[in-house]
Amino acid sequence: MRKLRAGIVGGGQGAFIGAVHRIAAELDNEARVVAGAMSSDPEKAKASAEAWHLDRSYDSYETMAAEEAKMEDGIDFVIVATPNNLHLPVAGAFLNAGIHVVCDKPLASSLADAQELGEIVAGSGRLFALTHTYSGYPMVREARDFVASGRLGDLRKVQVEYNQDWLMEPLERQGNKQAEWRTDPARSGISCCVGDIGTHAKHLVEFVTGRKVQAVCAELTSFVEGRQLDDDASMLLRLEGGARGTLVCSQIACGEENGLNIRLYGSKAGIEWHQMEPNTLQVKPAGKGWERFRTGAGYLGEAAARAARTPAGHPEGYLEAFANIYRDFMADVRRVAAGEAALCDYPGIEDGIRGMRFVQAAVESSGNGASWVEI
Amino acid sequence: MRKLRAGIVGGGQGAFIGAVHRIAAELDNEARVVAGAMSSDPEKAKASAEAWHLDRSYDSYETMAAEEAKMEDGIDFVIVATPNNLHLPVAGAFLNAGIHVVCDKPLASSLADAQELGEIVAGSGRLFALTHTYSGYPMVREARDFVASGRLGDLRKVQVEYNQDWLMEPLERQGNKQAEWRTDPARSGISCCVGDIGTHAKHLVEFVTGRKVQAVCAELTSFVEGRQLDDDASMLLRLEGGARGTLVCSQIACGEENGLNIRLYGSKAGIEWHQMEPNTLQVKPAGKGWERFRTGAGYLGEAAARAARTPAGHPEGYLEAFANIYRDFMADVRRVAAGEAALCDYPGIEDGIRGMRFVQAAVESSGNGASWVEI
Amino acid sequence: MRKLRAGIVGGGQGAFIGAVHRIAAELDNEARVVAGAMSSDPEKAKASAEAWHLDRSYDSYETMAAEEAKMEDGIDFVIVATPNNLHLPVAGAFLNAGIHVVCDKPLASSLADAQELGEIVAGSGRLFALTHTYSGYPMVREARDFVASGRLGDLRKVQVEYNQDWLMEPLERQGNKQAEWRTDPARSGISCCVGDIGTHAKHLVEFVTGRKVQAVCAELTSFVEGRQLDDDASMLLRLEGGARGTLVCSQIACGEENGLNIRLYGSKAGIEWHQMEPNTLQVKPAGKGWERFRTGAGYLGEAAARAARTPAGHPEGYLEAFANIYRDFMADVRRVAAGEAALCDYPGIEDGIRGMRFVQAAVESSGNGASWVEI
Amino acid sequence: MRKLRAGIVGGGQGAFIGAVHRIAAELDNEARVVAGAMSSDPEKAKASAEAWHLDRSYDSYETMAAEEAKMEDGIDFVIVATPNNLHLPVAGAFLNAGIHVVCDKPLASSLADAQELGEIVAGSGRLFALTHTYSGYPMVREARDFVASGRLGDLRKVQVEYNQDWLMEPLERQGNKQAEWRTDPARSGISCCVGDIGTHAKHLVEFVTGRKVQAVCAELTSFVEGRQLDDDASMLLRLEGGARGTLVCSQIACGEENGLNIRLYGSKAGIEWHQMEPNTLQVKPAGKGWERFRTGAGYLGEAAARAARTPAGHPEGYLEAFANIYRDFMADVRRVAAGEAALCDYPGIEDGIRGMRFVQAAVESSGNGASWVEI
Repeated sequence: MRKLRAGIVGGGQGAFIGAVHRIAAELDNEARVVAGAMSSDPEKAKASAEAWHLDRSYDSYETMAAEEAKMEDGIDFVIVATPNNLHLPVAGAFLNAGIHVVCDKPLASSLADAQELGEIVAGSGRLFALTHTYSGYPMVREARDFVASGRLGDLRKVQVEYNQDWLMEPLERQGNKQAEWRTDPARSGISCCVGDIGTHAKHLVEFVTGRKVQAVCAELTSFVEGRQLDDDASMLLRLEGGARGTLVCSQIACGEENGLNIRLYGSKAGIEWHQMEPNTLQVKPAGKGWERFRTGAGYLGEAAARAARTPAGHPEGYLEAFANIYRDFMADVRRVAAGEAALCDYPGIEDGIRGMRFVQAAVESSGNGASWVEI
Repeated sequence: MRKLRAGIVGGGQGAFIGAVHRIAAELDNEARVVAGAMSSDPEKAKASAEAWHLDRSYDSYETMAAEEAKMEDGIDFVIVATPNNLHLPVAGAFLNAGIHVVCDKPLASSLADAQELGEIVAGSGRLFALTHTYSGYPMVREARDFVASGRLGDLRKVQVEYNQDWLMEPLERQGNKQAEWRTDPARSGISCCVGDIGTHAKHLVEFVTGRKVQAVCAELTSFVEGRQLDDDASMLLRLEGGARGTLVCSQIACGEENGLNIRLYGSKAGIEWHQMEPNTLQVKPAGKGWERFRTGAGYLGEAAARAARTPAGHPEGYLEAFANIYRDFMADVRRVAAGEAALCDYPGIEDGIRGMRFVQAAVESSGNGASWVEI
Repeated sequence: MRKLRAGIVGGGQGAFIGAVHRIAAELDNEARVVAGAMSSDPEKAKASAEAWHLDRSYDSYETMAAEEAKMEDGIDFVIVATPNNLHLPVAGAFLNAGIHVVCDKPLASSLADAQELGEIVAGSGRLFALTHTYSGYPMVREARDFVASGRLGDLRKVQVEYNQDWLMEPLERQGNKQAEWRTDPARSGISCCVGDIGTHAKHLVEFVTGRKVQAVCAELTSFVEGRQLDDDASMLLRLEGGARGTLVCSQIACGEENGLNIRLYGSKAGIEWHQMEPNTLQVKPAGKGWERFRTGAGYLGEAAARAARTPAGHPEGYLEAFANIYRDFMADVRRVAAGEAALCDYPGIEDGIRGMRFVQAAVESSGNGASWVEI
Repeated sequence: MRKLRAGIVGGGQGAFIGAVHRIAAELDNEARVVAGAMSSDPEKAKASAEAWHLDRSYDSYETMAAEEAKMEDGIDFVIVATPNNLHLPVAGAFLNAGIHVVCDKPLASSLADAQELGEIVAGSGRLFALTHTYSGYPMVREARDFVASGRLGDLRKVQVEYNQDWLMEPLERQGNKQAEWRTDPARSGISCCVGDIGTHAKHLVEFVTGRKVQAVCAELTSFVEGRQLDDDASMLLRLEGGARGTLVCSQIACGEENGLNIRLYGSKAGIEWHQMEPNTLQVKPAGKGWERFRTGAGYLGEAAARAARTPAGHPEGYLEAFANIYRDFMADVRRVAAGEAALCDYPGIEDGIRGMRFVQAAVESSGNGASWVEI
């Protein structure tokens, strides 16, 4: 069982998400990042690769895809950590070269791009994972089991929110690179806030409930003067099976760091989870006291148990959740290499396309003055 | 400075809100409940009055209003604690008899009734308080001061919610009196959940922010089969001055007791308050750590200071908040008696009429498939 | 069933505890405070009585005891809300006059006084309640039931603490009356912090566990320069049945308001309660998730159910807890008047004497350099 | 800047702490574990090494030390992850071979061993780190800065506790390896609970306050029948400079996972930190609301900033804290290799010896019936 070999495109110096991918991919000793095209700036690409002790550094992702595909010990998969508008060409290049892909979310900067990428994935027969990280937390997996086992009863009501404040000032006009591309329609697409974090919230709802969001009635707002894309959104949701809900996301919610929170209410119980205290899942059975489930505890289901690395009470965080996405993906990489069927138990291309449909529906609804738009 | 004399209509045995009114009215030693028409059932009216040691018990509110108005030591004000549809006739009878009124919310079972009551109040020259209790909490008053002082900056975003679960089963068909009248259009009006608790949430928003909710885009649902009125609602809000928000209320949110929570986000700070831990106000200044304000602490403003009865760390609860509404109302009763101008620093008839407009707008919006409806 | 008549000694203007007693005694409409000797300063006594609308005001407690005992409609019981050193003479005067007593804690300023008072109580045949308020909270009563029912298993370990910060500066030299008498050995006795709040913590342990604290090993400290009595203490505890524990109390714990917290660990479960969020009891069953019990919920035992006045989710606070002590005491007053046996289900004279023994043992242990001293 | 090469002794399959060391050492891409003697059982040693993709596996630590010292590309440092009684011989062998050491705590199974190891470290001139992991958390480092900067004022009072429940049943007689060696005097030394986790709590106090614990007055207990070593302890503490405190540790505190909590009270502020919610530091300034500091926030000091890998709101956990100890240690390894002076800003041999003195003092104090024993 050799370690897998990974490559990365993007994620060079200055982009925190690059190191996050590396740590997550390598955490369980199953893979090593060996090659990269870490920046479109050749100097920066080289320096980033050296800092990471990569075996091979490339100036362009096209070269990298072509070269790695030819090598006997080329990479098993590539990590795409670029702005949204590059996801399609970069991922496409590697898929077409026969290399599996792990891609940042949202899937693309437009639905058309997303759908094109979907066709490439389908045609390639390669694996594709989308890093909706939050589904990697042990207690999110326990929540999914809780719903699937029937302990929630019929799902009636969803409240999900993802509030941040990092864009509450016009950082895009103050030299912040992250803010620049995210608020720029050319690189980010038709939405900033809904695309960047609303898609996480929507994915979390579908992941935990097992039900699709069917329609949205949304109001998107740009609170910071001069900003071209939304920095805040509120929506009503209709889900398969008759459940109703709200989704709130914001990048101008003063004082909020990374407040992704979900509450579900069923006919037998409710559940609640907060990303910033991720090791606790609050269970609210009808007519009884709330029960607090905790990462690493012996009473959890198999999925949550597998997703934890330490005994209860040793907090597991964002990096470990991220690593769980990689772990499941890499197990599939090994399965495929062994000629077995992939399990695909991680967010994939369909989630990505649905995510783009969701963004488009939200933008359209808001443009119509908050009409219901189906996804 | 004699104690004021209060009367009560409704609130007889079995209705927890009756005792709440009595305790709240008498807590500060400023008033005594001396008379009542506590039930439409004469036996129950009598027994209730005896249990309360009332000086005078009446079989009908009409008689009570007429008699008390004639007495030299008649009541100074009456408490209306009946189902919604009786608020107009009962309050009207006392106002027309020259007696001040404290009335349960929502103001009436229809907007037409509410408006008629508004005219009676205006014509009577008497005081009218509506028991939006939650505005009586010290930390809600601190929150109002915080916004008014400019420390929040420009209000951008509101999230308010009021979730309960007591109607998650069809209690109205299982002999529960509270559930029966609240889910009965004849007594409750056009809405159950929005009328009963959504109005509290909406009032809280306007009370704390000092801004009106201008329009709603709502989806109301009846999750319990056979129920005629809504037991759950989600809405988008537009407020004066450009703020946006959501309002969620539910009586079927499994595991929630009385979860009234509000979050505001401005250009300089955010604030957050939870009714079930009412002695804490979370303040979230931009770029700094959250600051926790606490009831009874020396650093609070005058309004919060006046609203607390014990030193910090001695929890004040729902009854004390209720008593604060009475305290401010009764101070006005004394002012009017002394020929001074009333301050009216408590929820009143205008809040009640606006509340009914809000209910009507929410119902109308939902009926239209969630269009924006102005209040 | 007439209302009971209460009198009060002490508690005049400026002492917050006076109003607390009045509110608590009157909250449930079972009693009215009608007479008082509210201050040793006759002007202040008179003004305080008028502000409270008392029927009768006295210049001295001796006169009050004598007069009230003679009246047909004299007081049924008296509230003693004076500094510690007056508890014996005041309570003694009323007991000897045949009048029941509710007394502030600690019982006295010395063990000798406490024991003398114990003899007077015994000789008088009158009822005596000591206001260890915290045992009045619904969730404290649920905790007691939890232990008594065997759900905790064998008690092994106790952690109790009561931290405040109000004496962290030398307020007694800055004109603060409360600080003056509490830090003055002549009025307060041999301890400030242990006597004032350590006794509450120790009582809470015994109340909830049903086991006596048998011995203490203590270190008392005066952190504020020039202070004669302790303002902080830490102790090891040995309880009946082999349980071990710690008790920490402080009046100089910067940032703490009124932080009385208790944790118990048994062979089957643990429990935890915090006075500042009194409506929650955390239950920690072995091998399962923590369960959160809440005031007013339907799943609680009878004692907790009786102690709540509102439905779950309507916070009950300190005043309501205090009122529960009064409610149980007043039920006994009626029983005795009816010739029935008293239940005495509230802190009484024995708790008071044990409390004084505890203070003496703690002071003695600390004086010996922290030796074990039996209570 | 090549990656450092690490070796490991112990930590083979079944010991969760092995993987924790590997992840922590490798997390920041600064080192790779390349060699190991992972078990005294040769089969298990080999299988463990293969599972980890080690370059070199040894049957004995003696061979490993000798061989690695001779190689040009031998390990830079070794990780000692064995039971306590092997720390001295294993660490000694590597130090004597000129190899730096990272060692699990407590330092040894006896004070004599600890002191002997101290002499070896001193004689070797090699670096020695002791994994008091909890000092690696960003907010613990912020807490240290807070105290050092004078914002706490004079330290008055400490409350530290470390409660677990994993030994509440006699696991050592049910085949649990971890329980077996920890409760066995031959391998664990004179204490189980105080040695295993009490030393963490005591180290945390000294790390954050910058003051030594001078004396303890302790009671150690074995609650589980037949157990030879303590599974619970409570102590009074005296610190340099006059501060007082308590330390509680337990392995039988039903429902507690890994509850290491510390509270400090000074003359200007208090602070509080909970290991299970490690990204929050509660600051309690005198006369103001509590302020909540958070990992990754921009307002923190340099030490906390350096210790975080992700933006605020992305929870960092136990593994990241552990990695921070490694990061600082490995920076010293590079400094020493470059001929520079080591900074030694991580727990080291002196902390380890003091930890053993603390264990001995606690055991002695308890044996004397809780007398004060100096450390």
